[in-house]
Amino acid sequence: MNRTYLDWNATAPLRPEARAAMLEASEIVGNPSSVHAEGRAAKLALERAREEIASALGAEGADVIFTSGATESAALILGGRDLSCAPVEHAAVLAWCRDDLAVDAAGRVTVPDPARATLQLANAETGVLQDLLQGLAASDLTQAFGKVPFAFNWLGIEAGFVSAHKLGGPRGIGALIVRRGTEVAARIRGGGQEQGRRAGTENLIGILGFAAAAKAAQNDLDQGIAEKMSEIRDSLMAALESGSEMVTFPGRESRRLPNTLSILTPGWRGETQVMQMDLAGFAVSAGSACSSGKVRPSSVLTAMGIAPERAGDAIRVSIGPVTERRDVMRFADAWLAAHDRWRQRNDTRVTAGKV
Amino acid sequence: MNRTYLDWNATAPLRPEARAAMLEASEIVGNPSSVHAEGRAAKLALERAREEIASALGAEGADVIFTSGATESAALILGGRDLSCAPVEHAAVLAWCRDDLAVDAAGRVTVPDPARATLQLANAETGVLQDLLQGLAASDLTQAFGKVPFAFNWLGIEAGFVSAHKLGGPRGIGALIVRRGTEVAARIRGGGQEQGRRAGTENLIGILGFAAAAKAAQNDLDQGIAEKMSEIRDSLMAALESGSEMVTFPGRESRRLPNTLSILTPGWRGETQVMQMDLAGFAVSAGSACSSGKVRPSSVLTAMGIAPERAGDAIRVSIGPVTERRDVMRFADAWLAAHDRWRQRNDTRVTAGKV
Repeated sequence: MNRTYLDWNATAPLRPEARAAMLEASEIVGNPSSVHAEGRAAKLALERAREEIASALGAEGADVIFTSGATESAALILGGRDLSCAPVEHAAVLAWCRDDLAVDAAGRVTVPDPARATLQLANAETGVLQDLLQGLAASDLTQAFGKVPFAFNWLGIEAGFVSAHKLGGPRGIGALIVRRGTEVAARIRGGGQEQGRRAGTENLIGILGFAAAAKAAQNDLDQGIAEKMSEIRDSLMAALESGSEMVTFPGRESRRLPNTLSILTPGWRGETQVMQMDLAGFAVSAGSACSSGKVRPSSVLTAMGIAPERAGDAIRVSIGPVTERRDVMRFADAWLAAHDRWRQRNDTRVTAGKV
Repeated sequence: MNRTYLDWNATAPLRPEARAAMLEASEIVGNPSSVHAEGRAAKLALERAREEIASALGAEGADVIFTSGATESAALILGGRDLSCAPVEHAAVLAWCRDDLAVDAAGRVTVPDPARATLQLANAETGVLQDLLQGLAASDLTQAFGKVPFAFNWLGIEAGFVSAHKLGGPRGIGALIVRRGTEVAARIRGGGQEQGRRAGTENLIGILGFAAAAKAAQNDLDQGIAEKMSEIRDSLMAALESGSEMVTFPGRESRRLPNTLSILTPGWRGETQVMQMDLAGFAVSAGSACSSGKVRPSSVLTAMGIAPERAGDAIRVSIGPVTERRDVMRFADAWLAAHDRWRQRNDTRVTAGKV
C-alpha cells in the first residue's frame, strides 16, 4: 500500500546526503585514536564532521561532544544537577530535573532563574517555541535543529543538545554542545575520547551521516523550507478546521515549529485516530513515541491546562522537507471521513440511549 | 601506497555483510517505539537482530541490551559496584573497578571471589584468554567475540559486554548481556526502551549492521577461521624469532586469541616501531589505542612482571579473517629490516661512546 509518513518528529527518514556520507565513511578503516595513517585519516574525517556540525548549529568555537543521541546528552549535562524544568520537556530531560516551572495555556514557560533551569527550544508535540533567556543552564534543541534557524552562539545559553535522527541523520548519534572548555564530568569513562568527557570509540559512520544531514538541513533552511512547511501545515489546519467544528490546535497561538500540528478532538481517543489513520495509509502519532507501544496521557497538553481526560484525545502530525501539500490534503480527507464516521456512531448511540 | 592493516584489535574494517545490512536498514523509516506500520516494521527488524546477536553469543534466552558500545556497557553494569579486577583490563573497565587481582607472568588472573569480580575473556594487547569462573559478576567479552567460539550461557557468568566494531560491525553500537530479568539501573534515562534499562531511540542501522557482522563472524568461526589466523600468527612469530635474538612474545605460553601477537624488543620503543612500520605501509599499534594519540606505558605488560621501562618497547600485531600469510610475511621482512637498522645505529653509538 502507498504510505504517507507524517511522523517526522518521532524520527525522520534518512536523507540521501546522509546515506551517501555513511557509505563513504564505511570505507574508512582506522580508529581515530590510532597513530598510524589509517587512524589519522579517521581522525581527520571526525574533526571535519565536528566542524560542519558546529557550523550548522551556529556553534563555531564551542565544544561539540559526540554522544549516542540527545537522551545521552541530556543525562551527561543534566544528571545530578537537579535543575528546574517544565512538564512540557521530553522524558529524557524530565528524568533529571524538577518540573516546577509554570506553563501557560499557549505552552509558554516562565523561567525565573535561567542559570538553574533547562528549557527546550521547541516542543515535540505542539511545536511551541520558547524564548530562551541568556545564561540558561541547558536547552533541548533536538526538535528545533534543522527546522528553524538558530545559532547556539547567539542564544547565549550554557549548553544544548541534539540528535541526528530528527533532521534526517542516522539514529544512535547526537551531541552535547557547551561553551569552549566547560567542565563536563564523563558518565561513560575509559578512553580519553571527546576531551575526556565521553569515552568510547567514535561512531564515525554515524558522525559523518550526522554532519551530512545537518548540512543538508541547513541548505534546506537557506532555501526557505521552513516557510514551505509552515504553509503546508497551515493548509492542513485550515482543511481540518473547515470540516470539523470540534477540532482545536493546542499551541496555535504561539510561535511554533513550521512542521508540527497538534490536533485535539474532544472525545475521540488519540490512539483510535492513530490506528484508523494507519489503516488508511498514514503514519501519525498520539503524543511522543514511547517504547511500550502504549500511549501515556500527554503531560505537555495537561501542562497547558487541558483536562487529563481530554489530553488523550490529541494526535500529532509532523511533516518533513519532502512532504507536499497533496500529502497532507489526502490526510485531511481521510481524517475528516473518519471524523464523520465517529460523529455518526456517537450520534446513533445518543439517539439509541446507549451513552 | 599499498597499505596492510594489522590493527584489527583497535577496530576491524566493516564487513561487507554489515555494510549491506546497514544499507538495507537505512530504508527503514519508522521509530521502533511508534505504533503505526512503519514503527512496527522497525520494531520487528530490531527484535530479529537482537535474536541473531543472542544466537551468535550463545546467549539465547538471556537479555541483550543494546548500548553505544562496550565502554557504555561497562559503565552500565560496573558503575557504582566497586568490583575487583586485574590491571590487565581495558580502561573502560578499570574506570569502575578496584584493580587488586593478581596477574602472573603468563598474563593469567586469579579470582578469589568471582561474585565480586569482573574479568575479561581475552586481552586486547597479548590475546591471553582467561578461564572464567562460574558466577563471575561480569566479563569484558569484546576482544573474544567473533575470534574464538564461546557461549555466554555456558560460561555461567552473570553479565558480559561486547562492541560491534571489533568483529567487523559498525562503531557506536554494542551490547550488555545479562541473565534474563537481571535488574540493571538505567544510566541513560527517559524513554522506556530496552525494557527500561537504556533509554534513547534505537540505533537501528548500527544494530542491523552488528547482527550481520556477528552472524558472519560466527560463520567464519564455523569454517575454521580461528585455526587459519592462529597458523598465520604463529608463522609471523617464527619469522620474527628467527631474525632477532632479542624479541619475546608476552603471553605466548598462555592460551591466546588466534589473531594477536604482542612483540617486545627491549630498548626499541614501541612508538618508534609503530611510526617506522607506518611509513613502510603497515598499520600496527603500541598498546591500546588512546585518544590523545600518545602511548601510555602498558599496564597489561607491567602487570605481567615486565619492567615499566621495558613495557613501552612492545607493539601489537592483530590480524583479521582476510589477512593472508603473505601480508604478515611482508610485515616480518619490513620489521626485521628496521630491527637491523636499529641494531646497527645502537652498535654505532656504543662504538662511538655515545650511549
